[in-house]
Amino acid sequence: MSVFKFSNLSNLYKSALLDDVMPFWMRNSLDQEYGGYFTCLERDGRVFDTDKFMWLQGRQVWMLSKLYNTVEKKQDWLEAARLGADFMRRHGRDRHGDWYFSLTREGRPLVQPYNIFSDCFAAMAFGQYAQASGDESAADLARQTYERILMRQANPKGQYNKLVPGTRPMRGFALPMILCNLALELEPVLEKDQVEQIIDRCLDEIINVFYRPDMELLLENLGADGQPVDSFEGRQVLPGHAIEGMWFVMDLAKRRGDMLLANRAVDIALKMAEYGWDKQHEGIFYFMDRLGRPPLQLEWDQKLWWVHIEALIAMASGFELTGRKECADWYKRLHEYSWNKFADPEYGEWFGYLNRRGEVSLSCKGTKFKGCFHVPRGLLKLWQIFERLTQIGGAW
Amino acid sequence: MSVFKFSNLSNLYKSALLDDVMPFWMRNSLDQEYGGYFTCLERDGRVFDTDKFMWLQGRQVWMLSKLYNTVEKKQDWLEAARLGADFMRRHGRDRHGDWYFSLTREGRPLVQPYNIFSDCFAAMAFGQYAQASGDESAADLARQTYERILMRQANPKGQYNKLVPGTRPMRGFALPMILCNLALELEPVLEKDQVEQIIDRCLDEIINVFYRPDMELLLENLGADGQPVDSFEGRQVLPGHAIEGMWFVMDLAKRRGDMLLANRAVDIALKMAEYGWDKQHEGIFYFMDRLGRPPLQLEWDQKLWWVHIEALIAMASGFELTGRKECADWYKRLHEYSWNKFADPEYGEWFGYLNRRGEVSLSCKGTKFKGCFHVPRGLLKLWQIFERLTQIGGAW
Repeated sequence: MSVFKFSNLSNLYKSALLDDVMPFWMRNSLDQEYGGYFTCLERDGRVFDTDKFMWLQGRQVWMLSKLYNTVEKKQDWLEAARLGADFMRRHGRDRHGDWYFSLTREGRPLVQPYNIFSDCFAAMAFGQYAQASGDESAADLARQTYERILMRQANPKGQYNKLVPGTRPMRGFALPMILCNLALELEPVLEKDQVEQIIDRCLDEIINVFYRPDMELLLENLGADGQPVDSFEGRQVLPGHAIEGMWFVMDLAKRRGDMLLANRAVDIALKMAEYGWDKQHEGIFYFMDRLGRPPLQLEWDQKLWWVHIEALIAMASGFELTGRKECADWYKRLHEYSWNKFADPEYGEWFGYLNRRGEVSLSCKGTKFKGCFHVPRGLLKLWQIFERLTQIGGAW
Repeated sequence: MSVFKFSNLSNLYKSALLDDVMPFWMRNSLDQEYGGYFTCLERDGRVFDTDKFMWLQGRQVWMLSKLYNTVEKKQDWLEAARLGADFMRRHGRDRHGDWYFSLTREGRPLVQPYNIFSDCFAAMAFGQYAQASGDESAADLARQTYERILMRQANPKGQYNKLVPGTRPMRGFALPMILCNLALELEPVLEKDQVEQIIDRCLDEIINVFYRPDMELLLENLGADGQPVDSFEGRQVLPGHAIEGMWFVMDLAKRRGDMLLANRAVDIALKMAEYGWDKQHEGIFYFMDRLGRPPLQLEWDQKLWWVHIEALIAMASGFELTGRKECADWYKRLHEYSWNKFADPEYGEWFGYLNRRGEVSLSCKGTKFKGCFHVPRGLLKLWQIFERLTQIGGAW
């Protein structure tokens, strides 16, 4: 019986999601006393820090609502989503309606809204939650948050922006990527034209501006004029982030029936996987420098969970859309690495942080940045992809 | 012939400073075209990024002036110091007189003065440079900068402070430590009372507030009330930073002839070295958590050059002041590790960043944070200490 039989893969992801990962979060992360979620969890799920980080509060509300909306109308999921949504609504925003970066356990604001990523995850959260709960005021909140994001996008950091204006204006790949994702997520609550317009703009940015055919690389940051810059930020390459972006693009290509775009995204994902792969110790590097110079980030050579699960999605999705053999080969390589190194059969969920050699560097299951999001979202996507492939039948 | 004969150690440090490390920076870092210093240098000294980071501009002016003032009246050093001082003076400040964090190669401002550390290094730089050059306007600039630092110390980050006021007010060990160092550095240009007052206040903070006898740890951050806080910042321990602070305190104890204080600083340095030492792979960890929880910093287990050279200074200085055998034992252990792992006999200077196993993780010799400072300053201090010990004679 092949590991790589589609029906086995479908079962693997379904079971990992429903019998392991979601129970881990349902068991350990709900703060029944103050509302919201604990995300700083030790290997076995014990809480080691009680601060509430808004990225992860929003992402968990989104994940629970998404499961409720697409997998099963499980009351536990809806109630857990409500626990986070109510906490966020009560404590999450400053007087302008912008979302804080973090709160204390009780909900007192700790770190200001110094960027718009908290807001993006909040908007996604309330979009899905509105659908799950039928609560119209949640849809309003998603819309209001989305409007604030559009207002702030020219200077997302506001007063906290440390760059001197004008000297070296830059633009980042993260913004079109998240806006594009957000427009899709909020489709039910936005105007149709608005959604298509944003998608057009973001796709063009991602594929024609941030991807550089001359370098065969997708860059993380460009000058405001769209040209590469020779600085730490301008040389930065995050293979995992680029590959994640490519499955977003594949989803859009599928939605539009645009097979040329799907193949383009697959090409880029393959190139970035090849570029980011550690030929010595396996796994995909976290940070790289396009000129091979030393990256600023000391953790550059670590192997992170989200990088690998995003790459699994991209390769499985790429195969589903184009049938290309390179996608299957990459999927298998990533599968062996990820399931051997990240999964923790003993205590459940995945480790987040491995060193270059693939040894666990931090054994916790959740942090300020790792919560109930990339692993369950990835498991859900992969389950869905392999379920569809199972209909066709076969194996790799 | 013992490696640990004092005269051999004295010669080792003298020669490393004068024949290896300073020539490396003199050869590779001077920007004769635009002024200032390149600090992003590959293993062999080639420049890989041309931005000018003000911490390191100031530190290099300081280092060159210090050598000129204390070692030899070498014109090359003075001219190189002037190259940096003139560049800083011309381009380094915003309209309030606060020092930028970074500039382009040409001197255009890139990153705003979002903290007062640039200012601290600038004040130190112009204090030493005034002495080296006899330039009275440099002394004025040091004084003005120092006054701005005192004005800003209540909220060093100004508008860039992302913490919501009042929720969890914290104070950091870095501030008293640098202020105390700064007051000493600026002694020639400040009032005597002012200097002693600052030293009294900082010493009290460091020894009686940030060091916790109940935990036997020096903490990096405390609540504003001086009590430990159970948050990522509040649990943070940086053994290298604490040990560096202890040789500052030893210098002050020596200055005041306070042997009780010297022994206190030695006690703390020994405890922090023991606490920070990696029993599995040797070397001192970068970031730790006082409750043994996962630190936020993914690079927590790396071994950094400055941590180890600061620890060498603390142990040598501790031995010189107190004659305690534990200092000698720790010195020897650190010496073996540092000279084997960090020094690069092939291309000169020291590597900066090793992984947990002590393998080179980034082979560059300079970055945005590593410049002509910790290594040469440490070599100079150690040369001076072992030269004095040589007078007494003997070996370990």
